Amino acid sequence: MKALRVDNKGIGVRDITKPERGQEAIIRVLLSGICNTDLEIARGYAGFTGTLGHEFVGVVEEAPDDTLLGQRVVGEINAGCGQCALCRAGDSRHCGSRTVLGIVGRDGAHAEYLRLPMINLVPVPEKIPDEHAVFVEPLAAACAITERTSIQGSTSVAIIGDGKLGLLCGQALALTGASVLLIGKHPDKLRIAERRGIETATVKQALNRRKEFDVVVEASGSAGGFEMALDLLRPRGTLVLKSTFHGPSQIETARLVVDEITVTGSRCGRFTPALDLLRRGAIDVDSLISEEYPLAEGVIAMKRAAKKGVLKVLLRP
Amino acid sequence: MKALRVDNKGIGVRDITKPERGQEAIIRVLLSGICNTDLEIARGYAGFTGTLGHEFVGVVEEAPDDTLLGQRVVGEINAGCGQCALCRAGDSRHCGSRTVLGIVGRDGAHAEYLRLPMINLVPVPEKIPDEHAVFVEPLAAACAITERTSIQGSTSVAIIGDGKLGLLCGQALALTGASVLLIGKHPDKLRIAERRGIETATVKQALNRRKEFDVVVEASGSAGGFEMALDLLRPRGTLVLKSTFHGPSQIETARLVVDEITVTGSRCGRFTPALDLLRRGAIDVDSLISEEYPLAEGVIAMKRAAKKGVLKVLLRP
Repeated sequence: MKALRVDNKGIGVRDITKPERGQEAIIRVLLSGICNTDLEIARGYAGFTGTLGHEFVGVVEEAPDDTLLGQRVVGEINAGCGQCALCRAGDSRHCGSRTVLGIVGRDGAHAEYLRLPMINLVPVPEKIPDEHAVFVEPLAAACAITERTSIQGSTSVAIIGDGKLGLLCGQALALTGASVLLIGKHPDKLRIAERRGIETATVKQALNRRKEFDVVVEASGSAGGFEMALDLLRPRGTLVLKSTFHGPSQIETARLVVDEITVTGSRCGRFTPALDLLRRGAIDVDSLISEEYPLAEGVIAMKRAAKKGVLKVLLRP
Repeated sequence: MKALRVDNKGIGVRDITKPERGQEAIIRVLLSGICNTDLEIARGYAGFTGTLGHEFVGVVEEAPDDTLLGQRVVGEINAGCGQCALCRAGDSRHCGSRTVLGIVGRDGAHAEYLRLPMINLVPVPEKIPDEHAVFVEPLAAACAITERTSIQGSTSVAIIGDGKLGLLCGQALALTGASVLLIGKHPDKLRIAERRGIETATVKQALNRRKEFDVVVEASGSAGGFEMALDLLRPRGTLVLKSTFHGPSQIETARLVVDEITVTGSRCGRFTPALDLLRRGAIDVDSLISEEYPLAEGVIAMKRAAKKGVLKVLLRP
């Protein structure tokens, strides 16, 4: 089968053997999405080699039992050991010996087929088209911000970054009733948020609102976003880090102490509530799709996804 | 009067005019303590010029009313505007136009006299000797950790740094019933904690306990402490930053995202509960005093305080 892989020769679409089922399920991929994390991994982040990709929708073709056979599914990306206290409590996102689809020790979704444990799979309601379902992973990650810090109607939130992650965070957090400001550099992207009734600002405009926000979400994936967040936060405010990028940042930690800022990392979310938002049409994902490529053109698609101004690039096997 | 000052000629004990009362109180300083922040300020942190020092005990000599005249007092170091919502709620620690004793826009405590608003002053119970009362500010800062993150009997806490701040944090947090490990490099300092029943470890020993702690307090004042804290924290654990040091640190923010770590800055605490701990003899501060110098030898005392292995250095006007 074809798979978009990163290995010691760089990235390329290779012909590899279709995975064997073992105790897990084999899913035929219908559509996969390129995430900025894929681009970071291709640059060496996480030291991963194998098939890239962790955003997908597909159909279960083989499985240890027939409960999901033939069904359209999405799949949570962390596969836990099943034995530790975290896994036994039903949440393998921080299992110490987890593999992660297309990120840690497990081939990913930019392929004709992928393999995941049955427990990771969530059926997709018929009403949700593939082009929406493929967004469930990043949307779940956006919704997961509320697991890390309290956001409610009285909370003032700023989101730095008008890329696909920022736009999903903005839409997800606006549903909490909080007042949300999305900050970005691209009028056409900011317009996507404005169409959903979300206030927007350019970076320059936002810097007139120093020390005003209870929560700032850094979703720009740039080191400068961290410093800007500190400018915008009120004392004792919370900075939520959503972007993973490779390499160290220069941070003046004394600023965190003096203003007693909290910085909290936020990674993966649960799929069921995110699927529910997609089913209800509560999130505009159509506007976030820039282009679709056949999987065979995966390398070109990755280059395209890395271009400024481009939002989600999809791959179809 | 004599005052230990930092100005464009560096630091030195200068003869300056005794402050005028105005709407505030004049306190004759009995004893002041040198904090690492004083050393950082002398190196340029916070851009401060004026009289150094924010840890003191003294006697009220002049005041707008006679409620505290002649009384022995300590004083909270943040002087707020009195008008903003924070100040009106009785907490000026984050007032946006505050001055801070010996740190921001207000002459400090390494002097014969200092000036503070009446509202900042807290009488010292007779039972507490000057040599203990002078520790109220750093002890209050240690106790303030529980304002920033929940610490209770079931919480496992590691404290990095066996300096005076680390030793105060260790003692204060052990009183919550949490299991506390103090990590340091100096056997004689670790012994101070051990005498209070606190478990200790060398850096090397502690690194055998990776991902074990719910909360890690960085009190070493070194950039390496941050990275070590990330090694020791369990996923979704909390790193409390207590040290302010000048200049940026290199931080791999992706580590905060992947393990969903929370980093929270912690600065000043309230004096009344800290005084109560001192009154009850719940904290060993005697062991934390390395030396006492006359104020006139303030520059030598500052050099001494900067030496490795030295704990609290006191100044007596």
